Amino acid sequence: MRRKQGLLIVCDGLGDRPIGRLNGDTPLEHASTPNLDRLASQGMVGNVYPHKPGVRVGTDVGHLLILGYDTETYYYGRGPIEAASAGIDLQPGDIAFRGNFATLDGNGRIIDRRAGRITEGTSELASALNGLSLEGGVTVLARELTSHRLAVVFRGAGLSASVRDTDPGATSEGNPWQDPTPLDSTPEAARTANLVREFSIKASRILSNHRVNLARKEEGSLPANFILLRGPGKMGPLPKLSEGFPIRPACVAGDKTILGITRMAGFDTFTDPRFTGEADTWLEGKIGKALELLHSGYDWVLVHIKAPDLAGHDDKPEAKVEIIERWDKAMGLILNEIDLSQCYIGFTADHATPCEVGDHSGDPVPTCIAGVDVRKDGIDRVGERFFRSGSLQNLSARDIFMIQMDLMGRTEKYGS
Amino acid sequence: MRRKQGLLIVCDGLGDRPIGRLNGDTPLEHASTPNLDRLASQGMVGNVYPHKPGVRVGTDVGHLLILGYDTETYYYGRGPIEAASAGIDLQPGDIAFRGNFATLDGNGRIIDRRAGRITEGTSELASALNGLSLEGGVTVLARELTSHRLAVVFRGAGLSASVRDTDPGATSEGNPWQDPTPLDSTPEAARTANLVREFSIKASRILSNHRVNLARKEEGSLPANFILLRGPGKMGPLPKLSEGFPIRPACVAGDKTILGITRMAGFDTFTDPRFTGEADTWLEGKIGKALELLHSGYDWVLVHIKAPDLAGHDDKPEAKVEIIERWDKAMGLILNEIDLSQCYIGFTADHATPCEVGDHSGDPVPTCIAGVDVRKDGIDRVGERFFRSGSLQNLSARDIFMIQMDLMGRTEKYGS
Repeated sequence: MRRKQGLLIVCDGLGDRPIGRLNGDTPLEHASTPNLDRLASQGMVGNVYPHKPGVRVGTDVGHLLILGYDTETYYYGRGPIEAASAGIDLQPGDIAFRGNFATLDGNGRIIDRRAGRITEGTSELASALNGLSLEGGVTVLARELTSHRLAVVFRGAGLSASVRDTDPGATSEGNPWQDPTPLDSTPEAARTANLVREFSIKASRILSNHRVNLARKEEGSLPANFILLRGPGKMGPLPKLSEGFPIRPACVAGDKTILGITRMAGFDTFTDPRFTGEADTWLEGKIGKALELLHSGYDWVLVHIKAPDLAGHDDKPEAKVEIIERWDKAMGLILNEIDLSQCYIGFTADHATPCEVGDHSGDPVPTCIAGVDVRKDGIDRVGERFFRSGSLQNLSARDIFMIQMDLMGRTEKYGS
Repeated sequence: MRRKQGLLIVCDGLGDRPIGRLNGDTPLEHASTPNLDRLASQGMVGNVYPHKPGVRVGTDVGHLLILGYDTETYYYGRGPIEAASAGIDLQPGDIAFRGNFATLDGNGRIIDRRAGRITEGTSELASALNGLSLEGGVTVLARELTSHRLAVVFRGAGLSASVRDTDPGATSEGNPWQDPTPLDSTPEAARTANLVREFSIKASRILSNHRVNLARKEEGSLPANFILLRGPGKMGPLPKLSEGFPIRPACVAGDKTILGITRMAGFDTFTDPRFTGEADTWLEGKIGKALELLHSGYDWVLVHIKAPDLAGHDDKPEAKVEIIERWDKAMGLILNEIDLSQCYIGFTADHATPCEVGDHSGDPVPTCIAGVDVRKDGIDRVGERFFRSGSLQNLSARDIFMIQMDLMGRTEKYGS
């Protein structure tokens, strides 16, 4: 079977609902998008459910589904995703937590869940915890994430993710950190709870005396003298994409979570400080990198654009229209460069983030797959309402993944 | 519930993609099809996924799905299908192989995997192996298939299909036949591997001295002195269609695989030497036979047409257009003969075989169900692009099976 390449743009949170301020259009319908319109006319379109109708998914689950994973089996919680985002190479059995650098007073009460929104020095602080030994041969891996966040991993045999967060959550200032009670009656949960307690105390001791915190105290900043943990997940086996399909995949993104997920899935990942994950991201640079990767022989290149999601969360429809129009311009570069007889080009979203909802919703997301030999739906305008009569309507993200692999000639025949 | 009849034409490999040489049409869109257009206008249409979006299926799996079988449960591999094609009545527990008559030299090396593409005398040679006894009360069933092929079945208790092929595959001339290593650590696999070895040696002895081979040597042809085995499958229970639905089904086909599958499913099967399975097949004869079977009281008649699939594999879009136009003419006979108020007429495909792919693809296949009381989609032209807005769009082959059974009044009510 002849093999071809594929390029997929994932426009985070792209899907939306009719908005009064846009005369009842969605941002995608409202935007001027000559290049995307041209792309749509060259293929199949539709509104695609990330998982199932009405099910809202997070960015992590949404992306695993775009990559074709059965998330009932392969989603191990946010902790492992964040650890991968931090660059930790997880192994099955690891327990991964999301962590905050926090400030405690002398009585173990929380002064600030974010240690004065610390940004500087977190790499050194995390390093000081990395490699820490706990009871029974358990090792701690720790790595900083954006601003006051870090990833914490317990590595060892017989651990469980069924322990309560030590982070009591928002509006908890003045309260003590939570004791990590086991959440089920297994010996693994009891043991892990004890290890979390041990880690919390040891980490506090190490952090309190750390050079970074002594300097912070001197300058009057809150010291990052404690780690609040939440969202533990037990890593399980995750086959690389290339184990199921003969492809060499690459991802171009600025967002750490996306880089982490695609790295877990076996993608080579490419980023740049100018890929900010914000509205000012260097879109042309991302597209240029994607074209370069396709030329250099990667089979499937995924480009992630975060900004539409942020505009949705912030209820800024005009900003969403603007980022879509900037994206459309960048698509012009692609349409001029790529031979649609050799490479399929598509776009989709991990979920909708309707501006007036201000959060992810379960709406299906506008999706397109174009190419010379793709059946044409005859729809030459992008937008939720125009895509409704397309042939991809009501399929799911995993269907779209399989359709791409089939078009690219990367699937085994079922039967003979 | 009133019961009616049904006629389903399965046009093997009918689905396709836009083809440059056909001005961007698919072959079905390009062909002149007045009768099929009329049929489409009398019912529901759509592009139907054989299994799931993007999943490529083989002819065997595709047909089991058209007959409503859950192939995750009821597909036992190609071996059992081929054995059924050869006319062997399989029982659960049988291990069925696909076999080649081959030529070995005196040192057990392969001179020709196809014994000089032997065609004559294979029935006698297979007969000489049929009934052969192996260790532990295992009996061999052997029956010739087309040209150099045959089906070999081991019948007995405690057998396994987890053994390596003795056929080393294409481009293996000059190499020895492969030892049938067990592929798992069960005693059944070890035992079956020994039986395959025993069969190979005994069969070789019987064939070498067979009259047909002595004559071949005399005339300078390669003797068929060995059986290379591949693709073993363990037959399991397969309920007849009539066990699930009160119907008496019949199949009209030239292709042995289709005749085998439908026979396994409990169809009465009808063939004729003029049903060649090629482009020159006697289409009018097939249709005539189908009409006769409907008149004689069969409830559901399936007519199989192989030629579109062959044209797809050979990348011959013009030939595919031609066979579709011939099929359309034959449909004229049906529309003149059948009372659409008493019999539903439909067509579908087991899978798409796009010419430019040259193999089966995961694309959905054009499908139609017509009848006086069928809801009308108002689409009066056949073709992938015209069917896109039909009511069957994106359903699966098993859905289409159930819709036919429901229309025909052959289903139980779920609940009361």
